[in-house]
Amino acid sequence: MATPESVTVLGISGSLRAGSHNRKILRAAAELLPPGARLVTFDRLGDIPPYNEDDDAGTTGQQPEAVREFKNAIAEADRVLIATPEYNGSIPGQLKNALDWASRPRAEDPLRGKRVAVVGSTNGLFGAVWAQAELRKILGIHGAEVLDRELGLPLAMDAFDEEGNLVEDGFRDALRDLLEDLAASPVPA
Amino acid sequence: MATPESVTVLGISGSLRAGSHNRKILRAAAELLPPGARLVTFDRLGDIPPYNEDDDAGTTGQQPEAVREFKNAIAEADRVLIATPEYNGSIPGQLKNALDWASRPRAEDPLRGKRVAVVGSTNGLFGAVWAQAELRKILGIHGAEVLDRELGLPLAMDAFDEEGNLVEDGFRDALRDLLEDLAASPVPA
Repeated sequence: MATPESVTVLGISGSLRAGSHNRKILRAAAELLPPGARLVTFDRLGDIPPYNEDDDAGTTGQQPEAVREFKNAIAEADRVLIATPEYNGSIPGQLKNALDWASRPRAEDPLRGKRVAVVGSTNGLFGAVWAQAELRKILGIHGAEVLDRELGLPLAMDAFDEEGNLVEDGFRDALRDLLEDLAASPVPA
Repeated sequence: MATPESVTVLGISGSLRAGSHNRKILRAAAELLPPGARLVTFDRLGDIPPYNEDDDAGTTGQQPEAVREFKNAIAEADRVLIATPEYNGSIPGQLKNALDWASRPRAEDPLRGKRVAVVGSTNGLFGAVWAQAELRKILGIHGAEVLDRELGLPLAMDAFDEEGNLVEDGFRDALRDLLEDLAASPVPA
């Protein structure tokens, strides 16, 4: 099993916009990971086509190219960190769409057995707690080993400086703690 | 307010595949609506691009063409009927993605105040009950007047004949009842 010194964490932002607060959280996570662990990001979420069973040949190798890249990125990572906004009380549609592809075919789902942590942020007061909860449920159905932690950043518009650095210290500390658990081996109880 | 005799119901299938059971449910619904009410379908769900705030100019008029068409179809209908499968314990990503677009900008959301019913089907035993529940929650946040009804078709692969006709009589009767409530004016308690 991977040790913290060799852990690669795949960061996925549930928001597609370039200046997304959730992307900035991933940037902060890259700095806050334990020594030796590193974060890579998957930045082609927006290229994944709508899931249509008619376009799904049934094996990963025949799926659309952006889907294969997404699944390979998950498969090659030791851990996954998803930072999500909340849209209409739930997870962003395009993030869910990517996860829908990842689950097909079931036996080739790269999330199965993968340790995953979920965080979220919104400009409102609640820090995407509904989106996080739904996402944890969905990931559990994928067979992922989902950290039973909720970490939301409310009022995200005030949590970063002009260079995009996370300056909300309480969230920063909580994120560092969560990343220690995510990178740790074996899984914390 | 619309009377049943002049009610137009917009049917939306949460599955994109051509032979989808949920599409077949919409076809059955077209026959089971009360006299005078009619069903039209929105068939371009797969053309809606991933929601990205950077691509959202802030008014419906500037949104991508398939999004405008989706929102106009909702706005022009008196009622909406969504038939959804369940993917990974929740609603299909592309259906959620379309709803994410519809909610922007909030003041122009055509679902606000619109009466909407949700049904679902799966090949499994549970008839998409989780997807239906999450969808009702999401629609409530849109401000829709969501019928507080659950109607799932389990074992959908056995519920249609070779021509795609709904032959599961219990579900057929329940769907007829639901459509009466959906088309009725005023809203049933």
